[in-house]
This record gives sequence, structure tokens and C-alpha cells, in this order.
Amino acid sequence: MDFEKELLYRQNKVNDYIENIIPSESEYIQNIISSMRYSLLAGGKRLRPILLMGTGEIFNCNEEDLYPFAVAIEMIHTYSLIHDDLPSMDNDDFRRGKPTNHKVYGDAIALLAGDGLLNLSYEHMLSFLALKNEARFVKAAQEIARAAGINGMIGGQVVDIENEGKDIDKDLMEYMHNNKTGALITASVRCGAIIGKGTNEDIEKLTRYAKSLGLAFQIVDDILDVIGDSEKLGKESGRDLKNKKTTYVTMYGIEKAKEKAENLTKNAIDEIDSFGEKARFLKELTLYLLDREY
Amino acid sequence: MDFEKELLYRQNKVNDYIENIIPSESEYIQNIISSMRYSLLAGGKRLRPILLMGTGEIFNCNEEDLYPFAVAIEMIHTYSLIHDDLPSMDNDDFRRGKPTNHKVYGDAIALLAGDGLLNLSYEHMLSFLALKNEARFVKAAQEIARAAGINGMIGGQVVDIENEGKDIDKDLMEYMHNNKTGALITASVRCGAIIGKGTNEDIEKLTRYAKSLGLAFQIVDDILDVIGDSEKLGKESGRDLKNKKTTYVTMYGIEKAKEKAENLTKNAIDEIDSFGEKARFLKELTLYLLDREY
Repeated sequence: MDFEKELLYRQNKVNDYIENIIPSESEYIQNIISSMRYSLLAGGKRLRPILLMGTGEIFNCNEEDLYPFAVAIEMIHTYSLIHDDLPSMDNDDFRRGKPTNHKVYGDAIALLAGDGLLNLSYEHMLSFLALKNEARFVKAAQEIARAAGINGMIGGQVVDIENEGKDIDKDLMEYMHNNKTGALITASVRCGAIIGKGTNEDIEKLTRYAKSLGLAFQIVDDILDVIGDSEKLGKESGRDLKNKKTTYVTMYGIEKAKEKAENLTKNAIDEIDSFGEKARFLKELTLYLLDREY
Repeated sequence: MDFEKELLYRQNKVNDYIENIIPSESEYIQNIISSMRYSLLAGGKRLRPILLMGTGEIFNCNEEDLYPFAVAIEMIHTYSLIHDDLPSMDNDDFRRGKPTNHKVYGDAIALLAGDGLLNLSYEHMLSFLALKNEARFVKAAQEIARAAGINGMIGGQVVDIENEGKDIDKDLMEYMHNNKTGALITASVRCGAIIGKGTNEDIEKLTRYAKSLGLAFQIVDDILDVIGDSEKLGKESGRDLKNKKTTYVTMYGIEKAKEKAENLTKNAIDEIDSFGEKARFLKELTLYLLDREY
């Protein structure tokens, strides 16, 4: 199977799993259910679940032990996008080629749908823990919780929001990106290894892989925001400029940023080379993400 | 010790525990830390943690097994207040006698502080599970997650927000209150019993107790919103009228509503009578809540 077909196949499997677990009807609260479904099923790349599943495969994990965590991370990622797009935050109108959640459901329901998805991710993980109460699963849930919180993703968002229009230094920009996008990406990979009972050495290698990948991913995002096609991106390009954000592009220029992303991609792939054929998909994915158009 | 002193003593213990676990300083994200602390340490009644601890006492639980869950519930309650007060929701300026979170920290940080508190509640419970991984603790965390989610508190908020200014029937109003305030109150009590290894019969009794108490609490809230003193309430009274909300008072009138709250309080106390002296504090608390002024 060529890589893009394989990726699509994996994305569809994630979508099917999500479709199965997210409620679809309700007597009194249909509106929030629809709003949550709208964003969760809007056709994202499913990068985080696919990374988690792909890492678990290295250790021959059962898919059913990975999915609850993979999908919990995707719910957290989706809630963060809904809240990020709100008028009081980035005030964005389009996401994944569709009007943002609050443009369709209003600010109040969008806010609550975000809250609902964050909470549902934990409901889902805890239901799994109630069935299969092993230390590695608790550890995986803990990993996700830490990465999603103020010392992870939320912390990155705070720095992002507070520094719009300000010149920030390299350290602060790195803190921002390592947390805003990096933390959940790293948690995805680490969870796959933790659930797969990887050794400490395995987990450390994969953590370094994920950190390089996460940073490369963010730099490519910054580049696409400048040179990308709005239609392919599914959102307006040039948003960083509009919101006066400091990015890898504003700090280093396009060419240097590209070079940085290429080097990080190479480093990432080197880190998982020792896993051989079992890491083939992850390696191909890492290369693919460097050359993506959206 | 008279009851009010005992209540204060218990509130202070909860406050001390919260103070110990909530971060206080950070290099990059001081603002959200301050914002979370502002609302979490604003001097609430601590009703939910105190209910959880009080129920656990019936079963001679260790305090250290109860606190992580008691405080997680308080964090969830606090995040819900911060989000509820936002301009896109109830747009309130005062809470607990102080300006609301977004009035001090701005809408973006208030939104993220709410997200941060919700997430922190799970970080905290999962850290505890990682240390003491017993089925009863997983079950307690699951109970809290369910009560906080779309089939609990968030569902109630959705119905509340969507029906401002509309006439709603008794069923929908009951759904709203049972979920918006009732779910977390019931979860608090149930968690105490679950952690305390109560029998199914114990848990059922205490669930009925909590449901009656939760409804009585809400009705008293509705009454205080009409006849209460804004200064004592720490927030503007008359908000329900202003926001055109259907409440027990608009549906039944003050006198009937009072009678209802009294009957529910009596029912609640009857349910836990069989626990004898061990439930003394809970009984006194239940009576106290009927006659409160804020």
C-alpha cells in the first residue's frame, strides 16, 4: 500500500472509532451534541491519534488498548481549537475549510462544546481504566493530562495569546511552541510507548523523536501560514501576520525556517531508526509531514 | 463545637489543601496561575468537598483518600463558575463579593483559567490513581467525570443558556437543575460512599439524600436571588429576573418554593437517619443550607 493510502486508511479507522463513541442524539441537549460532532468530525489530519497508534505498533500493542487514549487526545486537540477560535481568543472564522464552531453554534455553545470535549476525553479514559485497571494505562492518562494542562498545551496558549503584537525572544517562542503544539504530540508518542511497555530507553528515544517532529511540524505550520494556499489549508493564510505573532518565519525567514524543519525531520527519523521495519510507518509519516501542503 | 465553627474549621482545611496543591509561581505563565488562584481561593462555601468528606466520614475513610477527589470537584465547580460568568454566557460582573475572573484577567485568560482548572482536576485525580490504583478510586474519578460532563453539569448549563427568556415546562426545568447543580452535588456524596466502600444500599440511600439536598439547595438559591441581600450573596441579586430565567420561584412563587425546599430537606435528612451519629454533621449541614443567607 502506498503511504498516502495507508494514511487515509488509518485516518478512517480513527474516524470510525470516534463516530462510535461520540453521542449522536439527545432529548434536551441536541445542540451541544451537534456542535461537538461538528468539530470532532470536521476531517482533521488525526495526527495525534495516528502517532499514538503508530508508536504502539512498534511494541505490538493491541489496538483496543490504544484507541481510548488516541481518541482522548484528539478530543483534547479539538476542544483546544474550538476555544482558540473564539472571539476572545484568535477570533477565527474558518477552520478545516468550514466555518468555526462558534460561527455555526454561537459563542456560548462553542465554549460549552469545548468544555464538553475536554471532559469527555477524561470520561472516556476513565471508563477504560474502570475496565482495565493497569498501571500503564493510568500512566498514559496521566501523561495526557499533564500535556494538556497549564504546564503543557494551555501554558503555550497563554504565552501565545499574551504576546500577540509583541517581540518575543527565542526562549519564549520555544516555550510557546513546545507547549502549545509540542506537548500533545509528545504525549501521543510517549503514550504509545508506555502502553506498549517500552523500556525507559525506548521511551527516551521516542520522546526525542516526538520533540523534533513536533517542532518541525510547528515550523512547517508557520511556513504554510505565509506561503500556503488558503483553500488547501482550510483556513485563511496570513493569520500569524494579521495577529502579529512571532513565528519561526518572522524570526528566521522562510529559507532558514525550512532548513530548520528539514534538519529536525532528519533528527527525528534518526532517533527511531533502531526500531527498524516496525517504525517504517512513523518514518514515512515524519517525512510526509515535512512536505505537506496543509 | 457548635455547627458554624465546625463548618468554618472544615472549610479552612479544604482551603489549606487547595493552597498546597495549586501552583503559585511560574516563569512564563504567572497570569493564568494568578487567575486560577483568584477564583479557586475566592472563599466559596466549599459545599461539594465538605459533602464528600462528610460522607466519607460515615465510613471511617482516611482523609488523604478523600481529599484528592473533594478538591478535584471544587476545581470543576470553580471552572464552571468562571466560564458561566463570561460575557458570552451569563455576563456577570461579581461573584463571591469580588469582580468576576474575566473582569480582572480579561476574557481570554479567564477562559483558559477555566480550562486549566478543569484539566488540573483530572491531573490531580490521576496523580493519586498513579499512587494508589484501586478500583474504588477509579470509580470515584469516573463518577466525577460523568457528573461534570455533557450528561451532567454541562448539559444543565446548555439547557440553562438556551432557554433564557423562554417559558420552559417543569420537566425541562428539573432536568436543568438536576444537572447544572445537582449532578456534582450528588457525585460528591456518592464519591464519599464509594471511596468508603459503602454497600449498594448505602450508596442508594446517600444518592437519594444528595438528590433531595441538591434540589433544596437550588430552590434556596432561586429564593435568595429574589429576596436575598446582594452584599451577603456576594453577587447581584435579581439576576434570574434580569436574565429571564425560569426558576422554582417563577414557577411556584416564593411561599410554595420555600415549602418545597423544607420538604426536600426533611426527606434528605430522613434518608441518612439510619447512619445515626456518624451522619450528624451531614444532617446539621443539610438544615443549615436551608436557612442560609448566601
